[in-house]
Amino acid sequence: MAMEMEEIKSNSSSRIHGDDILPHIHHKVASPPKQTLFQDIKHTFNETFFSDDPFGKFKNQTVSRKFVLGLQSVFPIFDWGRGYNLKSFKGDLIAGLTIASLCIPQDIAYAKLAHLEPTYGLYTSFVAPLVYAFMGSSRDIAIGPVAVVSLLLGTLLSDEISDTKSHEYLRLAFTATFFAGITQMALGLLRLGFLIDFLSHAAIVGFMGGAAITIALQQLKGLLGIKDFTTKTDIISVMKSVFSAAHHGAKKNKKLFWVAAISPMICVIVSTFCVYITRADQKGVAIVRHIKRGVNPASASDIYFSGNYLSAGIRIGVIAAVAIGRTFAAMKDYSIDGNREMVALGTMNVIGSMTSCYVATGSFSRSAVNYMAGCKTAVSNIVMSIVLLLTLLLITPLFKYTPNAVLASIIIAAVLNLIDIKAAILLWKIDKFDFLACMGAFFGVVFHSVEIGLLIAVAISFAKILLQVTRPRTVVLGKLSGTTVYRNILQYPKAEQIPGMLIVRVDSAIYFSNSNYIKDRILKWLTDEEILRTSSEYPSIQYLIVEMSPVTDIDTSGIHAFEDLLKSLKKRDVQLLLANPGPIVIEKLHASKISDLIGEDKIFLTVGDAVATFGPKGANL
Amino acid sequence: MAMEMEEIKSNSSSRIHGDDILPHIHHKVASPPKQTLFQDIKHTFNETFFSDDPFGKFKNQTVSRKFVLGLQSVFPIFDWGRGYNLKSFKGDLIAGLTIASLCIPQDIAYAKLAHLEPTYGLYTSFVAPLVYAFMGSSRDIAIGPVAVVSLLLGTLLSDEISDTKSHEYLRLAFTATFFAGITQMALGLLRLGFLIDFLSHAAIVGFMGGAAITIALQQLKGLLGIKDFTTKTDIISVMKSVFSAAHHGAKKNKKLFWVAAISPMICVIVSTFCVYITRADQKGVAIVRHIKRGVNPASASDIYFSGNYLSAGIRIGVIAAVAIGRTFAAMKDYSIDGNREMVALGTMNVIGSMTSCYVATGSFSRSAVNYMAGCKTAVSNIVMSIVLLLTLLLITPLFKYTPNAVLASIIIAAVLNLIDIKAAILLWKIDKFDFLACMGAFFGVVFHSVEIGLLIAVAISFAKILLQVTRPRTVVLGKLSGTTVYRNILQYPKAEQIPGMLIVRVDSAIYFSNSNYIKDRILKWLTDEEILRTSSEYPSIQYLIVEMSPVTDIDTSGIHAFEDLLKSLKKRDVQLLLANPGPIVIEKLHASKISDLIGEDKIFLTVGDAVATFGPKGANL
Repeated sequence: MAMEMEEIKSNSSSRIHGDDILPHIHHKVASPPKQTLFQDIKHTFNETFFSDDPFGKFKNQTVSRKFVLGLQSVFPIFDWGRGYNLKSFKGDLIAGLTIASLCIPQDIAYAKLAHLEPTYGLYTSFVAPLVYAFMGSSRDIAIGPVAVVSLLLGTLLSDEISDTKSHEYLRLAFTATFFAGITQMALGLLRLGFLIDFLSHAAIVGFMGGAAITIALQQLKGLLGIKDFTTKTDIISVMKSVFSAAHHGAKKNKKLFWVAAISPMICVIVSTFCVYITRADQKGVAIVRHIKRGVNPASASDIYFSGNYLSAGIRIGVIAAVAIGRTFAAMKDYSIDGNREMVALGTMNVIGSMTSCYVATGSFSRSAVNYMAGCKTAVSNIVMSIVLLLTLLLITPLFKYTPNAVLASIIIAAVLNLIDIKAAILLWKIDKFDFLACMGAFFGVVFHSVEIGLLIAVAISFAKILLQVTRPRTVVLGKLSGTTVYRNILQYPKAEQIPGMLIVRVDSAIYFSNSNYIKDRILKWLTDEEILRTSSEYPSIQYLIVEMSPVTDIDTSGIHAFEDLLKSLKKRDVQLLLANPGPIVIEKLHASKISDLIGEDKIFLTVGDAVATFGPKGANL
Repeated sequence: MAMEMEEIKSNSSSRIHGDDILPHIHHKVASPPKQTLFQDIKHTFNETFFSDDPFGKFKNQTVSRKFVLGLQSVFPIFDWGRGYNLKSFKGDLIAGLTIASLCIPQDIAYAKLAHLEPTYGLYTSFVAPLVYAFMGSSRDIAIGPVAVVSLLLGTLLSDEISDTKSHEYLRLAFTATFFAGITQMALGLLRLGFLIDFLSHAAIVGFMGGAAITIALQQLKGLLGIKDFTTKTDIISVMKSVFSAAHHGAKKNKKLFWVAAISPMICVIVSTFCVYITRADQKGVAIVRHIKRGVNPASASDIYFSGNYLSAGIRIGVIAAVAIGRTFAAMKDYSIDGNREMVALGTMNVIGSMTSCYVATGSFSRSAVNYMAGCKTAVSNIVMSIVLLLTLLLITPLFKYTPNAVLASIIIAAVLNLIDIKAAILLWKIDKFDFLACMGAFFGVVFHSVEIGLLIAVAISFAKILLQVTRPRTVVLGKLSGTTVYRNILQYPKAEQIPGMLIVRVDSAIYFSNSNYIKDRILKWLTDEEILRTSSEYPSIQYLIVEMSPVTDIDTSGIHAFEDLLKSLKKRDVQLLLANPGPIVIEKLHASKISDLIGEDKIFLTVGDAVATFGPKGANL
């Protein structure tokens, strides 16, 4: 009769207790096939840097095919471009026109957040999307300046050079953009994109929310500054409320997204026209005033490659690259290769820095509109870019009369979408520590600065990792009645402990950072249990079973901790039994000869085995 | 018939396949008892900072008893002092005299490593052991200046103030000692002692080895510098070889440790006498020359609490405190409370800094001698301290004629013991990454400086932690024939996969730092297996079972990763089944409502259950 059972004997000591009627199948704790040092290093290296196997598709291909695949992998446009047709173009054209109409007013407004002239926003939305269209692999993402990065850049740059109208300020902006690009390219090419994972999702939610509030408050001040001009203000506040109502509508009803997408443009056109007709600028309404016509001038010679501002440029660039990288990762499609995208974004910013652009990345709001407007490929970015080109060449001077207040309202409407209260509530529900990180970043940004917010976010994220590696969980296991399944007695209060035995599971690799803690914690479980059991009629504990299944690895500190544990247990007359050590662990136990100290006959395949061998008669039934 | 089996059904879907003859015991995946937010935070806080439960013994005691216990816990001497007797004192007296004879020549020599006058070494060995005897909880540890910390301090101090003879240099040394003490006290009182665990054992082996080589080479230069004086050199080299031979002998035969313990003193006496008789100092043999008589002058007013050197003093103090903390932790008895020891060491250094001492800690070599000479309690440190007092008052001037060369040989002999080649070989055998950290620290110290070595050690230790948390292991499980035990198919090549199913175990908590990797890795296992199985006659994979036993926790990023995984699996027509999610995980799966997306009937207590429910008929038999 084929029976379902866990009654496997390690080829160990003779069977002392147990039910001899059942047939026994002998399985012993196996050592894995030996690996050479080179294989070992190669495996670790591949898992660390090439876990996504980017070269897998190159295997077993001819040289010319490899070349084509290589070209396609650097420029995905050669891949999807071959199958491109008129139907796709129709979708892309509409989407491209939509995001262009959304991005023009946003660009002008965002450039002001970075303390740059409006033209630089438009420049950025002309060059960056073109580069991305060739190298990027996402079809939805709309490229251009974004509010948070513009604010971050503006803060960092003006800390260095307070005169934001000076040529040095502009040069430093290009320098920072250049080094942001270089940083992104380096991270991508060295396949270190995973490093940005260290900024947790929670931290980013808080950081973005804080930045949004800061920007909104800043802009609100601008809006309130013109309250003397009642008629104008009314027009603006009406437009603003219409606009934000439309935005909310768009959220509830996807068909209304059009309203949200084009309302900023309509606001700009209507208000500009009003100001032009009524000459309100002469009555004190602040307007854009200066705006140059023409395409991007070259700016490669403006980048600081030496001098005092070089290090400042590098520092700001690296900070911006980290912020971009993480926000981009949060929005990217899950099938995208993060490292390749980093290279694309980096190239885009390097080229941008040489053509009078400042830092660009994927925009949350415009990407959503792009998707909803039915974009099929990155061609929508090309369409947007062409519209921007025409705008720069033909109609830029018309924006001269655009009132600043309407730009402020556009910014407010855009950034309020970055405040993700739902996400914050979810964080609270799921993980209090995440919520703390989120709030830390949020208040850091709101009450101090974007840099401090970013710093707090990184610090809390790291603290969480440190906590994870220094204080892993250990649990006491008990037996579920009528089975040989051993489970956490806190989760399964009905699980029964075995008389004379304590079963502890260690839920982490044992490394220098936690080895002492784990050893102390196991001893504390033992002490606590002994106190508990002396008051009852249970026999005292003679065996400590450590369930090692989750212990993926152990290092020299861990081995030393086990030696110490053995010594302490000897003093207490308790024997150590191990259950199910993994392949790496069993190898290291052998290499360090500690398996001899423990005794090969004390290492079992399962907890059930250990209980059957050393436990009271019938305990494992 | 009570049978051993793992055939437990979750109270899920109706049973599709399986053997209906067997009796079934129903256990479902349990949610743990709800904890309030406060309980949750309290538990995490306690595990992080009070995992050793230092206040446990205070529970249920009267107020006066609590006071006594508190006093004993700050000053353990009040605890063991009550049972002190003559027999213990005999052991302590002999041990104290032995370590005093060893420490006097070492102190004079080590002070020179710190570029301080020999007296300060003696001062330190007078005050520090006294304080430690009252507050420390180890009985074996001999307190005083040590070679590596002296070298570290000498390097760091002379980087700040190159004129080591100046009064400022001495003042900075006291300042650094003061802040080293403050840092240690703060770490101990805030119960942050575990932070020093981040410097791995491996890094310390390399760091100490490198420092030892550096010191030995430095001193060897001093030794070779007097080669013109053949007679003297011969005496010295003979003594040195005798001395080191004795040392090796001591290692092999514990009874010979006496020779090692007193030979430095004999060397000093004989050589000093020789120089005095032959007036070799007038022929060019370098001698100690200046050495003050009398006890420690007060130095509290010399500590910089303001001015330029304050920040340098703090920085050097913190570095020294970290180095001390880690080396001390490496030697401490396993039953000692690390945080309390930190407070004791810190108090000792703070008091030391006010009484003309420089940084002191536990010495490896002298503690070993102390133990072997039969010390019973910290009274041996008091005996040593009294001997030092007498030395300072009476015989210090006699050391004037001690040749520097003999001090150099004492240093060399002492530090060579710090080179632990056996440990390095063990590191290589057990963990290549540890070996790398060890070598990095070693070469950093040897080819650059102690600071760089320490920095490399910290960096590599951190890199290892980051690797651990970003790239956790995932393994494919197979069924051991004739059982319901599922094990890693790489470790147990005979384990068989279930047709139409892929079973993956995730061996780590799922956090923001690894959630994307884990999701991608699981999908890659799926892809790889599908490619493998299409070439065979296996049916395609319909079910992915994720074994969650080792997953201790999951955060919001992890939840999002699961959502993405579900989406990807849906595209591939594969269903997700979960096995044995832990208490925290199941709670968060419910809180985020993702358990509804997965389906409650897809969550099982064991892999065996999942296979029995959805696998091919009889697969789990």
